[in-house]
Amino acid sequence: MKAEIVAVGTELLLGQIVNTNAQFLSRECAALGIDMFYQTVVGDNEQRLMDAFQLAASRADIVICTGGLGPTQDDLTKDVLAAYTGRQLVLHEPSMQAITELFSTRGIHMVESNRRQALMLEGSDPLHNETGLAVGVALTHEGTHFILLPGPPKEMKPMFIKYASEWLRGVMTDEVPLYSKMLKFAGIGESNLEHQLIDLIESQSDPTIAPYAKEGEVTIRLTTRALSAAEGERNLMATEAEIRRRVGEHLYAVEDVPIETVILQMLGQKQLQLTVAESCTGGLLSDMITNVPGSSQSFLGGIICYSNALKNKLLNVPMQVLEGTDAPGAVSKETAAILAEQLLVVTGSDFGISVTGVAGPGASEGKPVGLVYLGLAQRGVEAKVVTLQLSGTRETIKHRAAKGALYHFWKLLKEI
Amino acid sequence: MKAEIVAVGTELLLGQIVNTNAQFLSRECAALGIDMFYQTVVGDNEQRLMDAFQLAASRADIVICTGGLGPTQDDLTKDVLAAYTGRQLVLHEPSMQAITELFSTRGIHMVESNRRQALMLEGSDPLHNETGLAVGVALTHEGTHFILLPGPPKEMKPMFIKYASEWLRGVMTDEVPLYSKMLKFAGIGESNLEHQLIDLIESQSDPTIAPYAKEGEVTIRLTTRALSAAEGERNLMATEAEIRRRVGEHLYAVEDVPIETVILQMLGQKQLQLTVAESCTGGLLSDMITNVPGSSQSFLGGIICYSNALKNKLLNVPMQVLEGTDAPGAVSKETAAILAEQLLVVTGSDFGISVTGVAGPGASEGKPVGLVYLGLAQRGVEAKVVTLQLSGTRETIKHRAAKGALYHFWKLLKEI
Repeated sequence: MKAEIVAVGTELLLGQIVNTNAQFLSRECAALGIDMFYQTVVGDNEQRLMDAFQLAASRADIVICTGGLGPTQDDLTKDVLAAYTGRQLVLHEPSMQAITELFSTRGIHMVESNRRQALMLEGSDPLHNETGLAVGVALTHEGTHFILLPGPPKEMKPMFIKYASEWLRGVMTDEVPLYSKMLKFAGIGESNLEHQLIDLIESQSDPTIAPYAKEGEVTIRLTTRALSAAEGERNLMATEAEIRRRVGEHLYAVEDVPIETVILQMLGQKQLQLTVAESCTGGLLSDMITNVPGSSQSFLGGIICYSNALKNKLLNVPMQVLEGTDAPGAVSKETAAILAEQLLVVTGSDFGISVTGVAGPGASEGKPVGLVYLGLAQRGVEAKVVTLQLSGTRETIKHRAAKGALYHFWKLLKEI
Repeated sequence: MKAEIVAVGTELLLGQIVNTNAQFLSRECAALGIDMFYQTVVGDNEQRLMDAFQLAASRADIVICTGGLGPTQDDLTKDVLAAYTGRQLVLHEPSMQAITELFSTRGIHMVESNRRQALMLEGSDPLHNETGLAVGVALTHEGTHFILLPGPPKEMKPMFIKYASEWLRGVMTDEVPLYSKMLKFAGIGESNLEHQLIDLIESQSDPTIAPYAKEGEVTIRLTTRALSAAEGERNLMATEAEIRRRVGEHLYAVEDVPIETVILQMLGQKQLQLTVAESCTGGLLSDMITNVPGSSQSFLGGIICYSNALKNKLLNVPMQVLEGTDAPGAVSKETAAILAEQLLVVTGSDFGISVTGVAGPGASEGKPVGLVYLGLAQRGVEAKVVTLQLSGTRETIKHRAAKGALYHFWKLLKEI
């Protein structure tokens, strides 16, 4: 089957936001075995959106539309599809109820326009919105399958993954379904990983091997066509074994989870507890860890020792280590080690991770942007220090430093 | 004039890369006063690219195309535009010379296909590529202006800024440029803001009023046509004043910056320092603050008091407040106030912000998901506590709680 994406929003045409939704949906469609020949972006304009629907329906079997499901006057997508298909808009009662409840819980006055978010098309299937108010729509009209999704990625992605893709599988008849498996790697860059697998990637047919990088982690998706999971696993077996032979030391999961999830599972099994001391990452490492539901079981918290004052006051790094002409300085192996070790003393945790470095944009203590020291402390063992030399913007360096800390801590945990 | 972007590349349709070029070009076009009604993505396919050119030329005056200028067989853009316009491809000698020189300097054997990168269309103007090999093309054909740019952003952006935009200005006769201004709001939702301005938005013509929400903040962009910034400001004056009259208490900036940047500027001016105590936000608040370059001037760091143990050990919240049947608990006004006040004691900072709440997915201490208490402490003044009732996923609640904390702290700072 062929799909086309129609992204609706004047903010896209003005360049206020990037169309990351198109990338996400393209990748998901590829994984479902759906071809894509075109993507279109159109503004919040009735006639032009109508034209875009018409054109997309003329050249694709599936039209996936993002944006324009909100409460405002600009949000026209459902109205235009209703006009295009000659169908009425009807209220989806469960969504309306959820909206009403939300407003009454918050004690906010609900305005009439919020009701628009609970509308769907006559004869359509609702797509549940777990993270927002606007209900999605799935509709087959004259042989074309339309899917209307909200614009905000936080709402669009779960709606697609949980509901829209299921609905699509239902309408994709006669196709041997795709079976996919994700291999997740850390501590290795995308180009290095690809370099080590290039002969496999270039000669691929079935299974296909699709590497891609996402936020400091590299994923390889292996895909084959199979009628059952068992058949799928059989088809993938030889390729997966060869990949493991070459780069298996970096493989931390065979499902799409971040490395922090795996770390928390390992800590939970061992009933051990972790704390962090963050200087250059400024809370990001802890933020990543606490994004995992249930992290409070193994993660006690930590200290954001952004200033030297707090490194000294809260984690007992001597001022003569931090400051002075001959001092190692805040960005040093010495400081990283003391921060990690003192975490165990101050908090009583079993493990401590420290991160200190130069996130930029300017150098610090005469040390270059991207230089980062990680301290890894474990009760009863001398702290280990790892040096990273990272590149990128301030935010990228923070991100890579946090992911680097997680990778090296995972390696340490594996060996316990 | 109207422009349309045609991005060429199968890697976009497979979701391997994000179309950031479209955002860049949209923003540049908006700044040049060029309207944009559509963007299209098409794969490396001759017939479909031809169709895309035809369609774009039928609905726009300017067609800006990115990608497909490279040396490989997949790079078809110039060939297809040549076929579409019935023109020959001719060699651009200076580009050919540059390519030949580069290969001889590097001592690499030049393959015949590299010659393709020096081709342009008969009657077209070359667009110099300062950061790569493929020459760009600008051509007016039967009243439509075509611009062909390379796909890699590091080649495309300088080519557009230095050469293509100049060429476009030359063909844009009689147009008055656009003048825009961003108003940034916090502590108010998009639909509520729009509700309060609906009559202005609905009756807009010049200036136009475009609201949009991005990560917990709402932006309004006012746009008018003006020959100078002074004229632009004059045109916007009445509308801006009316918006300020209605929702001015939420307006924190008239440029596109997050609220944390404004807070850090205010603290810097007053030479005052801030720390944070994060429970349910788990480091995110501090991460946001430290994303701002130079934040170390006013931000000392803080404590991620995720567990009750650390709330007690590091910030002296009595265990009888945190635990026990009649205790207020970790998620309470009492705990929020003590955490914020103790920050001042423990760290010596002038201000302390605390966040404690239930991020979910499950309830905690019998308290509902989304209930969040913010503590705001200021040296010499009793701590203030704000209650929020938020909704969304775990990550959304963390994000809204952090942005909420920043908003309420900004309100407090304004009044000092």
